[in-house]
Amino acid sequence: MSLSQLNTRLGAFASEFGAFLDRQFSVEPADGEIARPKRLLEAMRYAALAGGKRLRPFLVVETAALFFVPRNSALMTGAALECVHCYSLAHDDLPAMDNDDMRRGRPTLHKAFDDATAILAGDSLLTFAFDLLARPQTHPDATVRVLLIGELARSAGLGGMAGGQMLDLAAEGRFGKSAIDESGVLTLQRMKTGALLRFAAVAGGILGQADTKQAAALSRYGEALGAAFQIADDLLDVEGDAATIGKAVGKDATSGKATLVGLLGVEGARGRLSKYVAEAHEALAPFGKAGETLRLAADYAAARKR
Amino acid sequence: MSLSQLNTRLGAFASEFGAFLDRQFSVEPADGEIARPKRLLEAMRYAALAGGKRLRPFLVVETAALFFVPRNSALMTGAALECVHCYSLAHDDLPAMDNDDMRRGRPTLHKAFDDATAILAGDSLLTFAFDLLARPQTHPDATVRVLLIGELARSAGLGGMAGGQMLDLAAEGRFGKSAIDESGVLTLQRMKTGALLRFAAVAGGILGQADTKQAAALSRYGEALGAAFQIADDLLDVEGDAATIGKAVGKDATSGKATLVGLLGVEGARGRLSKYVAEAHEALAPFGKAGETLRLAADYAAARKR
Repeated sequence: MSLSQLNTRLGAFASEFGAFLDRQFSVEPADGEIARPKRLLEAMRYAALAGGKRLRPFLVVETAALFFVPRNSALMTGAALECVHCYSLAHDDLPAMDNDDMRRGRPTLHKAFDDATAILAGDSLLTFAFDLLARPQTHPDATVRVLLIGELARSAGLGGMAGGQMLDLAAEGRFGKSAIDESGVLTLQRMKTGALLRFAAVAGGILGQADTKQAAALSRYGEALGAAFQIADDLLDVEGDAATIGKAVGKDATSGKATLVGLLGVEGARGRLSKYVAEAHEALAPFGKAGETLRLAADYAAARKR
Repeated sequence: MSLSQLNTRLGAFASEFGAFLDRQFSVEPADGEIARPKRLLEAMRYAALAGGKRLRPFLVVETAALFFVPRNSALMTGAALECVHCYSLAHDDLPAMDNDDMRRGRPTLHKAFDDATAILAGDSLLTFAFDLLARPQTHPDATVRVLLIGELARSAGLGGMAGGQMLDLAAEGRFGKSAIDESGVLTLQRMKTGALLRFAAVAGGILGQADTKQAAALSRYGEALGAAFQIADDLLDVEGDAATIGKAVGKDATSGKATLVGLLGVEGARGRLSKYVAEAHEALAPFGKAGETLRLAADYAAARKR
């Protein structure tokens, strides 16, 4: 398989997954719910069904496939993870946070609705993720579901994604002067974007009841892929903004954005990127030929365009 | 036991529970977390350790006691529930929502920190609730933990508390003119405040692996207590604000607040309150003498002062 074939597969997956996720947002209240207020449900759907590459659920499905996990289990887990990802985008875009008006070529959630609705829809998507994971359709064994829930909560909360967003706001100087060094940037990024991508890789192993060695390999793969993904993102920012390296690096530095490109320069960051991709490949060695799609997914994460 | 004895017990419980909850917010990252950013952890602690009556965890502990559930299990479950309750207060107080500056005699979370930190701390408390419930300390049987998680998620999300807040904003006329009738008010209140209080009563039964009849009795008790609690709150608003009924009812009506006091008047609402308290008592009949504390808790919910 080539990178362009992976792209085609990702596109097909995004359609399949979008339809699956859509079905989870039924208008009828589920068992144990009182009513589903129309405006809130519409806002949740707006945030979650906006398209996007669906890389995280793709990774769940592909790591789960290594263990012959039924596709529906992996899709449920991917749906929960995507709800968390989409909630985080909705809250990060709020005026009080990053104050972004556009995302994926259309108004952000609070622009299309209003701030209060965006806060509540984000809250509800996060809550819904745990509802989905608690259902027997996710996995017949409750022990497996509870492991997924604990792992997702720790990846998304104080010690993971939300904590990473907090560190990012601090690095911007929001709470006073900040000087972040390389190790600070690495921690910030491992938390803010890395933790959910690592969860995506680890979840398939939990669903497949992987042994300790396999689980460690998937965790290492997910961490390396997450680090590569972030550097690729930072490089895109620079290369999209300006042709000359000096100016772009300068801009990163003055905007206070904490990135490896800002700290190491474009060439230094490119070197790191290759290192992380190689590490992701290496981590997959125990899975042999079956790991091919995941290997390409690491290449994709490192090479993707906006 | 008398109501004043219950008050004393609640006070003692609030201290015990506060110390228990405090211990959950260790500075050290838990297994699976990368780091715990100081500012975010402080904000979570500010929101969760502010005192308060701790009625919800008290109900969890007391319903669990009917089934001789180990106290630590009930406290863990109560801690998760209280995290959800406190996150909802933090988000509801935000300028984009109810815009409240003071709560429990001190600045609200976003006033003490800032809006972004309050959003993230709320998100992290909600996430932390599911982390707590997923832990083996909550209950040795994963099936029980997963039932608690699903029930809490449905009580807190789109079809429960968050949906209720959405309906409340709509009833205020935030998204256009609104005319809410009695059945609309009842649905709103069952969702916004009732769902978590019902969860508090039901959780003890889940922990104790109650049979279907006992579970139904606890659910009915929790719903009735929740309805009584809300009417008592609305009556307090009226009676706190003005001595004359007419003026107070008029104020409710003009502020667009959707309450039974506004719709039925003070006397009508008092009648409903007694009806719900009687229903809560009745629901406890199957538990006989063992239900005494819970009976008094319903009286307390109906009679409480600010």
